[in-house]
Amino acid sequence: MPKTVPVLEQILNANDQIALQNRSQFDAEKVFAINLMASPGAGKTSVIMATIKALRDEYRMAYINGDLASSIDADKVAELGIPAVQINTGGQCHLDATMIQRVLPQISLREVDLLVVENVGNLICPTEFRLGIHRNVLIASIPEGDDKPYKYPGMYLGADVMLLNKMDVIDAFDFDMDYFRRGVEILNPGLVFFPVSCKTGEGMVNWLAWVRTEVSDFMENGGAGYENR
Amino acid sequence: MPKTVPVLEQILNANDQIALQNRSQFDAEKVFAINLMASPGAGKTSVIMATIKALRDEYRMAYINGDLASSIDADKVAELGIPAVQINTGGQCHLDATMIQRVLPQISLREVDLLVVENVGNLICPTEFRLGIHRNVLIASIPEGDDKPYKYPGMYLGADVMLLNKMDVIDAFDFDMDYFRRGVEILNPGLVFFPVSCKTGEGMVNWLAWVRTEVSDFMENGGAGYENR
Repeated sequence: MPKTVPVLEQILNANDQIALQNRSQFDAEKVFAINLMASPGAGKTSVIMATIKALRDEYRMAYINGDLASSIDADKVAELGIPAVQINTGGQCHLDATMIQRVLPQISLREVDLLVVENVGNLICPTEFRLGIHRNVLIASIPEGDDKPYKYPGMYLGADVMLLNKMDVIDAFDFDMDYFRRGVEILNPGLVFFPVSCKTGEGMVNWLAWVRTEVSDFMENGGAGYENR
Repeated sequence: MPKTVPVLEQILNANDQIALQNRSQFDAEKVFAINLMASPGAGKTSVIMATIKALRDEYRMAYINGDLASSIDADKVAELGIPAVQINTGGQCHLDATMIQRVLPQISLREVDLLVVENVGNLICPTEFRLGIHRNVLIASIPEGDDKPYKYPGMYLGADVMLLNKMDVIDAFDFDMDYFRRGVEILNPGLVFFPVSCKTGEGMVNWLAWVRTEVSDFMENGGAGYENR
């Protein structure tokens, strides 16, 4: 199917351009934007809800959620009292920059310090579409197994930070932490990596400290130093 | 991006044609073929290994695995002494009919009764590409959460049978079985559904009975009555 390759490349290039436009808006309005990616059920929404509860008095936050269908996650987050927008991708396996651009008018960016984007649950496709955000956050989880870096390398290559969630159930699974770490280290040497449990709260303080440092750096230095993510 | 739609339709149609060619081969050689789909880490390979151990003396089995990278799963299955072929999709988020067609010459279909295909770990994209197999098997798992039917409806719509794996850890998770069942029932009324644990063996007898019945029906009646899957 060689005919499809140029079309796909055109789409990706067009997407990158729109991502840069999103980024310009974020930078102009001093909004630090992060994109959370994970397998279905790894705990993206749980991490986000815990993060909002911990930080909503420090920062003005907003949330964009991508799912094939339903508004389950955006409804949960809206209950926490921050602006929450649902994108239904209608079958698309990922968010793209155009989907983000289309919903930004629904958020008053001038009144936001930290924008959290939750991508579609998928360890493959979301890595191929830049959104214009500043940092990519990968959430792995214990029940998924220790071999995921080896099987889904693209996701681990593109992460700026990683949470390993559901540490509270590690004894119930055969999870070889050394094997997992080696896989991560091959792909993304030195990746900042927090073992956490949203259920017990274990390790969340380290993740929250990372977010605080990142937001401070951004507020101090602006958006010039970030890759197009 | 309206220009891309006709191209995608052409690819899907071409894929369907090749799927039918694969199906013709399976039917001619009396090979019953199933396609296992699931989220990353739901336990596809564990279910398959348990199934092979239980049934390899009854049926001549073969295995095709799809992953973005690595041959971890095919290596494990090959150790069980059945023909195992690895497809690395090179970034593609799903298997397609052409990938299957390309590896079939590596398997002596005449000497196979039951072909098990393990798709790429992904709850979205694999549903869009028919392979030419007879039955789609969905493996859900407790740690993924009870809301997955609502968020990934396409996967639940296209399943012929479902296993709900990792029942051994249900007490460690907030999994509302009624909510899960209702979601499944809306999408796929009457779907055959087996709660199992590959780790403890719980429920596997029911799944194995389903496989035996399906293989018998196929051997008796041939492949004419199956949808193009």
